[in-house]
Amino acid sequence: MQAVRIGLVGAGFMGKIHSIAYRNAAMLFGHEVPAVDPVVVTDFDPALAERAVSDWGWSRSVRDWHEVTSSNDVDVVDICTPNDTHVDIALDALAHGKHVLCEKPLALDADGAHRLCQAAAASGLVTQVGFVYRQWPGVAMARKLIDEGAIGDVRTARAQFLLDYNGNPDVPMSWRFDRNRAGSGALGDVGSHCIDLLQFLAGPISHVAARMQTFIPRRTAHDGSLVDVSVDDQTEILADFESGASGTILASWAGTGHKCDLGFEVIGSRGSVSFSWERSNELRFFDSTDPADRQGYRTILVGPAHPGADGIHTVAAQGLGYTDAFAIAARNTLRNLAAGRVLSGPTFVDGLRVAEVTDAVIHAAADGSRVAVTRRTL
Amino acid sequence: MQAVRIGLVGAGFMGKIHSIAYRNAAMLFGHEVPAVDPVVVTDFDPALAERAVSDWGWSRSVRDWHEVTSSNDVDVVDICTPNDTHVDIALDALAHGKHVLCEKPLALDADGAHRLCQAAAASGLVTQVGFVYRQWPGVAMARKLIDEGAIGDVRTARAQFLLDYNGNPDVPMSWRFDRNRAGSGALGDVGSHCIDLLQFLAGPISHVAARMQTFIPRRTAHDGSLVDVSVDDQTEILADFESGASGTILASWAGTGHKCDLGFEVIGSRGSVSFSWERSNELRFFDSTDPADRQGYRTILVGPAHPGADGIHTVAAQGLGYTDAFAIAARNTLRNLAAGRVLSGPTFVDGLRVAEVTDAVIHAAADGSRVAVTRRTL
Amino acid sequence: MQAVRIGLVGAGFMGKIHSIAYRNAAMLFGHEVPAVDPVVVTDFDPALAERAVSDWGWSRSVRDWHEVTSSNDVDVVDICTPNDTHVDIALDALAHGKHVLCEKPLALDADGAHRLCQAAAASGLVTQVGFVYRQWPGVAMARKLIDEGAIGDVRTARAQFLLDYNGNPDVPMSWRFDRNRAGSGALGDVGSHCIDLLQFLAGPISHVAARMQTFIPRRTAHDGSLVDVSVDDQTEILADFESGASGTILASWAGTGHKCDLGFEVIGSRGSVSFSWERSNELRFFDSTDPADRQGYRTILVGPAHPGADGIHTVAAQGLGYTDAFAIAARNTLRNLAAGRVLSGPTFVDGLRVAEVTDAVIHAAADGSRVAVTRRTL
Amino acid sequence: MQAVRIGLVGAGFMGKIHSIAYRNAAMLFGHEVPAVDPVVVTDFDPALAERAVSDWGWSRSVRDWHEVTSSNDVDVVDICTPNDTHVDIALDALAHGKHVLCEKPLALDADGAHRLCQAAAASGLVTQVGFVYRQWPGVAMARKLIDEGAIGDVRTARAQFLLDYNGNPDVPMSWRFDRNRAGSGALGDVGSHCIDLLQFLAGPISHVAARMQTFIPRRTAHDGSLVDVSVDDQTEILADFESGASGTILASWAGTGHKCDLGFEVIGSRGSVSFSWERSNELRFFDSTDPADRQGYRTILVGPAHPGADGIHTVAAQGLGYTDAFAIAARNTLRNLAAGRVLSGPTFVDGLRVAEVTDAVIHAAADGSRVAVTRRTL
Repeated sequence: MQAVRIGLVGAGFMGKIHSIAYRNAAMLFGHEVPAVDPVVVTDFDPALAERAVSDWGWSRSVRDWHEVTSSNDVDVVDICTPNDTHVDIALDALAHGKHVLCEKPLALDADGAHRLCQAAAASGLVTQVGFVYRQWPGVAMARKLIDEGAIGDVRTARAQFLLDYNGNPDVPMSWRFDRNRAGSGALGDVGSHCIDLLQFLAGPISHVAARMQTFIPRRTAHDGSLVDVSVDDQTEILADFESGASGTILASWAGTGHKCDLGFEVIGSRGSVSFSWERSNELRFFDSTDPADRQGYRTILVGPAHPGADGIHTVAAQGLGYTDAFAIAARNTLRNLAAGRVLSGPTFVDGLRVAEVTDAVIHAAADGSRVAVTRRTL
Repeated sequence: MQAVRIGLVGAGFMGKIHSIAYRNAAMLFGHEVPAVDPVVVTDFDPALAERAVSDWGWSRSVRDWHEVTSSNDVDVVDICTPNDTHVDIALDALAHGKHVLCEKPLALDADGAHRLCQAAAASGLVTQVGFVYRQWPGVAMARKLIDEGAIGDVRTARAQFLLDYNGNPDVPMSWRFDRNRAGSGALGDVGSHCIDLLQFLAGPISHVAARMQTFIPRRTAHDGSLVDVSVDDQTEILADFESGASGTILASWAGTGHKCDLGFEVIGSRGSVSFSWERSNELRFFDSTDPADRQGYRTILVGPAHPGADGIHTVAAQGLGYTDAFAIAARNTLRNLAAGRVLSGPTFVDGLRVAEVTDAVIHAAADGSRVAVTRRTL
Repeated sequence: MQAVRIGLVGAGFMGKIHSIAYRNAAMLFGHEVPAVDPVVVTDFDPALAERAVSDWGWSRSVRDWHEVTSSNDVDVVDICTPNDTHVDIALDALAHGKHVLCEKPLALDADGAHRLCQAAAASGLVTQVGFVYRQWPGVAMARKLIDEGAIGDVRTARAQFLLDYNGNPDVPMSWRFDRNRAGSGALGDVGSHCIDLLQFLAGPISHVAARMQTFIPRRTAHDGSLVDVSVDDQTEILADFESGASGTILASWAGTGHKCDLGFEVIGSRGSVSFSWERSNELRFFDSTDPADRQGYRTILVGPAHPGADGIHTVAAQGLGYTDAFAIAARNTLRNLAAGRVLSGPTFVDGLRVAEVTDAVIHAAADGSRVAVTRRTL
Repeated sequence: MQAVRIGLVGAGFMGKIHSIAYRNAAMLFGHEVPAVDPVVVTDFDPALAERAVSDWGWSRSVRDWHEVTSSNDVDVVDICTPNDTHVDIALDALAHGKHVLCEKPLALDADGAHRLCQAAAASGLVTQVGFVYRQWPGVAMARKLIDEGAIGDVRTARAQFLLDYNGNPDVPMSWRFDRNRAGSGALGDVGSHCIDLLQFLAGPISHVAARMQTFIPRRTAHDGSLVDVSVDDQTEILADFESGASGTILASWAGTGHKCDLGFEVIGSRGSVSFSWERSNELRFFDSTDPADRQGYRTILVGPAHPGADGIHTVAAQGLGYTDAFAIAARNTLRNLAAGRVLSGPTFVDGLRVAEVTDAVIHAAADGSRVAVTRRTL
């Protein structure tokens, strides 16, 4: 396998995590993934791009992202910039024949995501979107149990992503609180993970009712002025699935006491599975076919037996963390790139499927009505 | 204090639990509650009434509940019969000047509950409704924390009651699956507890959107025929509170793996509390004013320091159970009866406030729209 | 079945709990247990005995326990007095042909317990000792799993009972801190439960090494003087079992943060079980024969499927508490009394088997050496 | 700061983990640590050394570890080989003026460890021993709480490390089951972590009683023959601390159901802390000075507020894992190397302090007596 040559656009926190992930994927998984060549990096802040060269091993930095998307020595463009720039960068990368990995949410709305999907389909290139959690061994194992019929027919599927880093009025104004830059607030930032996970586990969502709340309506800008917040601090969704199942989603970045609580529960006619990122090395599984006097939720400790975690540790519960989540995702991406085709998702299409639901949620919350999710054909 | 003379209508499982509760309240709490005189009992099945005399200490049984409601030696009528009989029995008891304790749900709909409240108000008698969980020490402590401002302004309030005893298609047809007898299914049977708890903790619900599901549409009757189920196996609610808070409710008796999981979480601007009956001797409390490096959810073990549990045990976590829940509720009821007025609820008005929400939920689920809860004046 | 006529000696907290238990056993379990006749009660404090008559349903009180043990209308004497009085009362009761239920520890040492066992054996009467926890459904289920081979050969068996009610120097001097009255401190008071549970689950202990600690060496007496404490606040034991297994015990009433943490873990070649009273409605069970990718500790919720809990509730996790523990034990005792022979323990012999270990622990702690447990023949 | 030039001896699983750790420390912590130059690697199996060059970024491999210890372009030698080779390699490295990081256990016995400490002291070089867990943010926070007096005087300190990877008789014979190669079994391999943690948190252990068990006395060698196991599968220890505290240790690699359960609990007069690696992103803390009705163990989620985790993630509970543990330890080591002196341990002296206890444990288990730990002067 030839080395995969990467161009990174965006060298903030997420760019750092991706940089570590490429290195670790190579070191953890050895020859099962192609080697990685971190060719070029850029950021809107040139100092960040230079730090990526000096500290994270990137070969060179450039000033303009067009130099990355058009570079001859780049196979794949990795996009870690703010939400409103994703579509332009990704379209340009595809136009230059680059594979693209884009952080989530893929676009500000389903229209943008749809344009990306159409361009990707026309190009035949590999696309990936940064829904890392569905690739996590505990989550992938949940999917495996569902696929095998271990929980029977899915009746209820619910998810939540609660954090509290924006729950304090002292957090200053930023692009994340501006609808024009971010699309939405907690919904897009963390709720998108809930939507992706539920659709990954229980299939497409067909209808939604929703409630969006802004607890802190004004925040202080850098210049000291009070500015209106135009996005949600919390979104609650009542969702129907095409399968006939139903469920709820709660997404909040003002969920006091919850620090990184991305969780889901899928209840079936025969069993159930549940998960929370706050105990990310555990998956809970209930099997109603166990004898009545010895049935109970099993706390499965994530380890070598689970999809994606093979090759990392020697025993279960040795401890996988956030950087490992990205290394596992990088392994999947690198395998796709080595194959030149998508062996495993999530792809831009998964990003679109989330954006379609997000659009419907915003619509339903504004109307106070149950709204059908409009699906685009590809 | 004179002994309180009780007439019991309904001698099934719940009648048994109430019978134990009266005895235990007297033995656990001593002179702080009036003595109890279990005067008379009836049931639609006379054999059950006779068992209550022989095994549970009731002095005599009668064949017709009118003999209880009209009996001269009864101070309070305790109603533990199926839902569709509550209104008639309670109205008759009030008409005869008896105080009334009625199991939940108070009536099949808000109209019935409203008639009861009007009769009760006119009579000046003490009424109580069987929402025992809000009287549980862990729950009462949650309320105390909220009242004291320990969690700040309530932003999110959600609840669930998940059990799985009706999740199997082999469970036969019964009155609980018949809308005409039961009013609703999981919504009234277990969801009513969720609604009462959330209104107890976070104030009145103003609007709802809802989804009702029937997973097992037909069940086998006693005669072997397949009969249509006309109630919900699961109800999901998106609720707005008058205070501006919002939240979700999930009520199901087909929640595979959940055995008695009545839980809630109330998230505020300063802290949070959460609870599940499956760990009923614990209350979780997060205080964001604790120092950053040592804050975290506290697992408070229920014990003598908590409202209602004083006088029972000598140390926390000694273990309170379902029978204790009813003894604690009986203590509150007996205190009210000794005083001749309501010192603490829940009263029929609380039962009405739940029924009003229940009606709105059924309406919203049928319409697929957000519905305002109609409140009756008293 | 004829009613069982009971004489109660000791009407403090434990006498109250026993009084409730007899009532509840009759009400919960109906005709499967004989009726109970609470004939006579006494206490060293006459006021307590009188309260037992007025509040707990005992027919009469007497001043001297000899009046109970020799009473013609008593079938069984129930002893709930301080530890140093157990032997005299029980011997006298047996001498008068009464069955005896005695609270734990049975005696101050193995010699006293042995005398009781010899008298009991000679009499042919039914004896019971107050080790309620082994009769708890979660614990009885653990024993059932072990008996069935579900965990294979026992390799490790350990237990703890940690509470913190005596961890504060402000707790005043009492008979419990006086070796002459109590025999030992935390060892006898709470450690005896650990020893009973481990021997119940893993068979006889053969050797011990031990460490006894007194954290608060002097406490304030009623007259304000500082008095030496002569018992342990904490005892730690390294135990060998006759089977070849080994384990540890930690017993403390100064275990800050633990409120009623009686727990055990039994690890076998094929599986494991563990339990804590702080989550008494759960039993954890690991089965290594489950498939590698879906094995994990099962959290079994205690309910109708488990030994002793049948007949109480309709669903698992409905919640059993401390008073239920005594009702379940009372059911077992009443069944034995109805049969006139021991159908299920624990009997005085089990009390002796604990006392033999307790003596060895005190010896080992004093010597700093590993000590063989001396077993008495019967 | 100049780059630190590293020579790695041992390129198996642990060598891989160290290789990742150096990279990640540089990428996670940036300029706060010196750059790392992975100069040379060796292994008894040359193929492993070559893999380290091709996959993990080492510049060259050599055949003989003497070439590493004597190399001119190496500042620090990192030893990840089997236990019985540690002393020779480390002595040679020190003799050549190299700083040394050595995996645990430092030596087969205290004599070997003492020789290393003497050589290290004479050299003035920086030494480190691979006790990574005490550097873990959750554990370091526990130490901080203890140092600040948040739990008062330590009364009880206990630890366990339970795994089950060797609990099956099918695991073949290897050097780890041979006392001459490994020194001991579970005691040295995993119990050494328990001893280090307890001494780190509660000070030096002064006396021990112990029990060592071998559950599987013979295992199958590569040639198919059955060979005697000469080490322990499980060791239990009753420990006294110089401070007057006491506690127990349970170390086992046959603890069915426990996958990576390194845990401890330290109970003090005012509070308590506890931890388990199976939930490594949590620390439990009880503060008895919290008000009685709202006290309870706090589940502290590890994050930026905790020692060692600063600079990694943006929110608590984002998830730290095993590779992060080694990156944090590498940061500490690299800081020491940059300073040319020990800013933070653990050093060879800490390795010796564990070995002294290990020797006493083996002695106590053989004798069945309580043994004083012999401390070497330095």
